[in-house]
Amino acid sequence: MRGNTFGKMLSMTSFGESHGPAMGVVVDGIPAGIPLSPTDLQKELDRRSPGKSAGTSSRKEEDGAEILSGVFEGKTLGTPLCIVIKNKDQRSRDYDPLKETFRPGHADLTTLLKYGHRDHRGGGRSSGRETISRVIGGYLASLILPKLNVWASIIKMGPFKTKPPLKRPSLGPYQFADPSQEENIEAFLLDLKEKGDSVGGIVSIKAENVPMGLGEPCFDKLKADLGKALLSVGAVAGFSYGLGESFSDLTGKELSERPPHFGGMEGGISNGETLELQVVFKPPATVGEAAQKGRHDPCIMPRACVVLESMVKFVIADHYLRQKAYEF
Amino acid sequence: MRGNTFGKMLSMTSFGESHGPAMGVVVDGIPAGIPLSPTDLQKELDRRSPGKSAGTSSRKEEDGAEILSGVFEGKTLGTPLCIVIKNKDQRSRDYDPLKETFRPGHADLTTLLKYGHRDHRGGGRSSGRETISRVIGGYLASLILPKLNVWASIIKMGPFKTKPPLKRPSLGPYQFADPSQEENIEAFLLDLKEKGDSVGGIVSIKAENVPMGLGEPCFDKLKADLGKALLSVGAVAGFSYGLGESFSDLTGKELSERPPHFGGMEGGISNGETLELQVVFKPPATVGEAAQKGRHDPCIMPRACVVLESMVKFVIADHYLRQKAYEF
Amino acid sequence: MRGNTFGKMLSMTSFGESHGPAMGVVVDGIPAGIPLSPTDLQKELDRRSPGKSAGTSSRKEEDGAEILSGVFEGKTLGTPLCIVIKNKDQRSRDYDPLKETFRPGHADLTTLLKYGHRDHRGGGRSSGRETISRVIGGYLASLILPKLNVWASIIKMGPFKTKPPLKRPSLGPYQFADPSQEENIEAFLLDLKEKGDSVGGIVSIKAENVPMGLGEPCFDKLKADLGKALLSVGAVAGFSYGLGESFSDLTGKELSERPPHFGGMEGGISNGETLELQVVFKPPATVGEAAQKGRHDPCIMPRACVVLESMVKFVIADHYLRQKAYEF
Amino acid sequence: MRGNTFGKMLSMTSFGESHGPAMGVVVDGIPAGIPLSPTDLQKELDRRSPGKSAGTSSRKEEDGAEILSGVFEGKTLGTPLCIVIKNKDQRSRDYDPLKETFRPGHADLTTLLKYGHRDHRGGGRSSGRETISRVIGGYLASLILPKLNVWASIIKMGPFKTKPPLKRPSLGPYQFADPSQEENIEAFLLDLKEKGDSVGGIVSIKAENVPMGLGEPCFDKLKADLGKALLSVGAVAGFSYGLGESFSDLTGKELSERPPHFGGMEGGISNGETLELQVVFKPPATVGEAAQKGRHDPCIMPRACVVLESMVKFVIADHYLRQKAYEF
Repeated sequence: MRGNTFGKMLSMTSFGESHGPAMGVVVDGIPAGIPLSPTDLQKELDRRSPGKSAGTSSRKEEDGAEILSGVFEGKTLGTPLCIVIKNKDQRSRDYDPLKETFRPGHADLTTLLKYGHRDHRGGGRSSGRETISRVIGGYLASLILPKLNVWASIIKMGPFKTKPPLKRPSLGPYQFADPSQEENIEAFLLDLKEKGDSVGGIVSIKAENVPMGLGEPCFDKLKADLGKALLSVGAVAGFSYGLGESFSDLTGKELSERPPHFGGMEGGISNGETLELQVVFKPPATVGEAAQKGRHDPCIMPRACVVLESMVKFVIADHYLRQKAYEF
Repeated sequence: MRGNTFGKMLSMTSFGESHGPAMGVVVDGIPAGIPLSPTDLQKELDRRSPGKSAGTSSRKEEDGAEILSGVFEGKTLGTPLCIVIKNKDQRSRDYDPLKETFRPGHADLTTLLKYGHRDHRGGGRSSGRETISRVIGGYLASLILPKLNVWASIIKMGPFKTKPPLKRPSLGPYQFADPSQEENIEAFLLDLKEKGDSVGGIVSIKAENVPMGLGEPCFDKLKADLGKALLSVGAVAGFSYGLGESFSDLTGKELSERPPHFGGMEGGISNGETLELQVVFKPPATVGEAAQKGRHDPCIMPRACVVLESMVKFVIADHYLRQKAYEF
Repeated sequence: MRGNTFGKMLSMTSFGESHGPAMGVVVDGIPAGIPLSPTDLQKELDRRSPGKSAGTSSRKEEDGAEILSGVFEGKTLGTPLCIVIKNKDQRSRDYDPLKETFRPGHADLTTLLKYGHRDHRGGGRSSGRETISRVIGGYLASLILPKLNVWASIIKMGPFKTKPPLKRPSLGPYQFADPSQEENIEAFLLDLKEKGDSVGGIVSIKAENVPMGLGEPCFDKLKADLGKALLSVGAVAGFSYGLGESFSDLTGKELSERPPHFGGMEGGISNGETLELQVVFKPPATVGEAAQKGRHDPCIMPRACVVLESMVKFVIADHYLRQKAYEF
Repeated sequence: MRGNTFGKMLSMTSFGESHGPAMGVVVDGIPAGIPLSPTDLQKELDRRSPGKSAGTSSRKEEDGAEILSGVFEGKTLGTPLCIVIKNKDQRSRDYDPLKETFRPGHADLTTLLKYGHRDHRGGGRSSGRETISRVIGGYLASLILPKLNVWASIIKMGPFKTKPPLKRPSLGPYQFADPSQEENIEAFLLDLKEKGDSVGGIVSIKAENVPMGLGEPCFDKLKADLGKALLSVGAVAGFSYGLGESFSDLTGKELSERPPHFGGMEGGISNGETLELQVVFKPPATVGEAAQKGRHDPCIMPRACVVLESMVKFVIADHYLRQKAYEF
């Protein structure tokens, strides 16, 4: 009830503060007997790690995941998997001035209001580092549906805009949907960093090979659960599917004349087509001198793409297990 | 797990098919001893009833709510309230041709895929009539926080656009945020109806006097639970808060120079400011001859406003009870 | 969170006060397309109805169940079933003297402590009439596992004792496991009633054809969920399985030499053998003049048997759906 | 849904196999700002550790608890606490012969049936070592209600019997309610061990200073949730409260003439009196040569007492938080 558990048949319980001993997650509901690849998991974790490119944070995180339970002889046991990553690079001195500082747009003040005290050294539970748990959860969820193909790509970042790709593209480190812009984006981000400025944007997420019939008719519509999952990610400020805001520019007749643009769901239930989702990111609130000095990304979207994909995979796998229970 | 229950400390369990005997809801978690006004409840139900104005459906619903439990001598007992509304005007003959028809954008096909059979007479569980339960839930939730002030107003409908009002406006039957446009909107909708066309748009929802500290740091951020609640409403295709998509047009510095536009939440936790939310509606999928003949609204937003308000009230009251449990 | 919902994949949400307009239940999670028999449901309801025999309460209840949702053309739709029974025979005047009376062993005082006010006319939510919901839930659960065979029989009632039957017996109205004692029991109960006294006892419940592998290894062991289900019934004061308290009289070696007496569960998971459960009932707390005059049973076990069976069926069906989800 | 999470407002998610890298638990819902004592936690863990006395298992466990999250400067943060204990003494060779062995009364066979494969080296999730999580959970729960006083004592072990103590006794290592018998019990257990035999018994658990009004009227009665909690512990085969099975020996009048024996609950809700609970333990199923050689306790009750207390504390703290939410 403190909101650290997500999912029903497949659930993940996240724990860890950014400057505590470790981050981690307990994932319950993975069926027994599925082979696990620590290498594949690490690849996913590396995608959210900072320091992969010039325009992202230089914090060194060394995300070495340790599996504490749920696996025997390389396969899942059907019991909960606890996977932990130690916080090696704590450097808490960096954060001392923040003791009396409440950064606007962060959880600093609201955390204090809510709990009465807080770990002032960093974001605590509200740190972006919390998303490690989500990436682990997403990797494990993907084991349930091996054909599921989910990919996120950035379609708007500051002045850069492009269209959502129709097929999974091969993306560069900035995860921009038009890879020819990667160099320009790097220059743009380095410039922002130098200025102590930041930028948000829009990410497209698509999911192919989603089984038909997922999602429940009333409150747990697939679109609602996907929306919650993605809106629970730190800087996400908006979610839509299909044509999104453009739905409001068309009449019903105009819409009916276009190729199907229901975004893969009708009545909130998957129809077998590709899911088409979009999320809006706020620009990071840390700007000015703090942003120039610190280990802050001027744009967090490149590192967030794997987190978004993970949440989508998790929701789909959870609904898949739910649906399986009721099939007679 | 079939997704007919929403909320944790305060929960509503919805039931009923559009052409079955009744629609209803069981609301559990309302504290004991709170006076209840059937008149106020009926007023809210009337706001979603069809036939209130020329541009809305002519179906006569007579939403007379019957309280089956949870109230004694005019006050809540602390036990679950079951409230039921009979489906008086079933006229199932209207729907016979739909037996072999699967309306695009509706749940017709996905329901069949999911369950193997369905009630072809109407939307079944996926009918807009299901939102009766939500309006009842929202009314009961509002009893917990009497100062909470939530209002929805339409800010985009086809060619009509306006800004979200700063204070609760006095709205006409079409719930447009600029009431001076009501006559034009009526003409527009009557014309759409005649053509068998339909239209979507954007609704702004604001919530004043939201207690500080609501929402949990990780998965149950207030923005995530509000998003899920609103995206679970039939035709809603997008959700955002604060500046919404415009967040992606500003740099962090530009944003920091504007008056606070975090939409009432920081780190996913309410900060005491007014919540600012927006949702996007698809145009209704029923168009052409079927829309001309039938009892279909060319635009469902006017009747949906009370449903959106209800969901927002419910989420806030649920989080309020959750937070109360942990305050020491 | 007010404890009116039971079960996970299969859930029932109970509502209604004994002297309010109606009792009822919403059952969610019944798969689609299963034929339903209102006659069979009524038979089960009749088993818990008072007035069936001389030794049980004379209150006339006319439990006519009304199905409000979830059924179309005689089959389940996969949507929630709401089933309601009106409280026709309220006679609230009988209960007026109870306004200032707190019956020991009842929920009267604890309800007032908990909620601040109460419906003094009867037990409110804590009335035995609440078990109507459970009987409906148990009937619907049994549709999921048609071969499941659950039966309860009384093995101790005051001075009467017998052994748990090995096969489902044909029982008389007092549900005593040795039907040859039915006449003596009737005389005994009529005598108790005349004296204003009451009696408890022990009920054996067996379940044949329980699928193997139900129950989860840690907190949701099958024995734990069965225990909770049965202990949630009003007058039940104890639960055990297998040899029950006699387990404490045997050494491990003595136990290993006997035929398997694990009560159908090992490690908390069903092993395919017949489940063997026992529950202890307190004597009803209403005694003396109140018991002589009123509509009180001197022993509630005969009417409770169907309630116990219903709870066992519900738990097994719920765990069956849970297990189905994870089978790959 | 795999049953590794217990509790609602206060929840614990348990993980770990007996021969995997670690056992642990995530406890969510502890309010912020409560001081924590690792020493007190270790004392509780030591009570369930083997090797404390001649008659208990000689396995060396070194239960050094490591706090991975949720604590800052010695106080809780209001975020989830993950606490882990490494499995240092795995000695898996001991268990190799068990690969093809299915011990009756254990989860060996049912685990294989349920999951298709298993960790044959020990009990896996069904090992008694899993109760480490419960002890940690119980310690953390006790921080919420510092006055709550819960104690378990053995009142029957083989030939030894005594009455439940009225006040918290000072117990010896065998936790027998009559400490004068400790020496005889030691001799008895050493003899059992030599013979390769085992024994069960009965444990009394009492809880003083339980707040009034805990427990919900219908399914979540306090007795039902306590029953589930205690029945979820491995070898527990029965649960009762108050007079337990003796309730069936008394008429209602006889009961009404005795001092209050409702076991601290009326209508399933705590009434402010001391809770009186009893649980029945089966004798451990491992007997004969395996029991003589191995690290098996001939009686697990002495080490289980702290586990039972922990579960009772957890249930009471959880219901306390639930009730707090609804108090207006």
